[in-house]
Amino acid sequence: MSKTKRKSGARRIEPARRSPCPLACSLDLVGDRWTLLIIRDLLLGRSRFRDFTASPEGIPTNILSDRLERLLQQDIVEQIPAPDGSKRFAYRLTEKGHALRSVLGALRDWGLEWLKGTQVLLEPKRR
Amino acid sequence: MSKTKRKSGARRIEPARRSPCPLACSLDLVGDRWTLLIIRDLLLGRSRFRDFTASPEGIPTNILSDRLERLLQQDIVEQIPAPDGSKRFAYRLTEKGHALRSVLGALRDWGLEWLKGTQVLLEPKRR
Repeated sequence: MSKTKRKSGARRIEPARRSPCPLACSLDLVGDRWTLLIIRDLLLGRSRFRDFTASPEGIPTNILSDRLERLLQQDIVEQIPAPDGSKRFAYRLTEKGHALRSVLGALRDWGLEWLKGTQVLLEPKRR
Repeated sequence: MSKTKRKSGARRIEPARRSPCPLACSLDLVGDRWTLLIIRDLLLGRSRFRDFTASPEGIPTNILSDRLERLLQQDIVEQIPAPDGSKRFAYRLTEKGHALRSVLGALRDWGLEWLKGTQVLLEPKRR
């Protein structure tokens, strides 16, 4: 009976892949209406749960909790101490998460060019 | 009683926008696990309903029908006569749809760099 497959502390759960296609595998992780908006907010310097819920799209808190957990499992986001010194956690992007910047840029540029009435409203938060 | 808001032949249904953010608006249209895989197949020269269902991810036919209808409504895809001369339709990307190539490229590159075991398998179909 080997225990090597379940190390304590290993929390990564690999999702079932639909194919080895890198596009499909990326969409398995970030292919939904909300995840990349959380990445956007993190890139803009937001870090706390309440920062994300304050964004104009109004993400439901149950969806936010689910997506943050998945992003943690996938090493796209990591937990850090809250900036106010409270017991709550805050979040920041890992290198893997920062690398999604090009994906967000491409989607933003497509929206700006092809979807009428879109405009960049959110500004980076001062630290 | 004005009729100007409902012209016959106008089939576009604008989805409810969550914000004017171009990223959020783009995700309202293509933010799911399947839509960009259909765009991938179209960019690779596939055009028929059965071509899309034959891709390795195995898209369910009800989801494929729903996504193709949405892509038609949004002028991302257009219908063309089937290449075999049958009564069925085929599909091709509009200019707006082709412009999503940069989004797919960014997601593919991120997957290739950060997700182990991914590889580019699908080749462009010969016409």
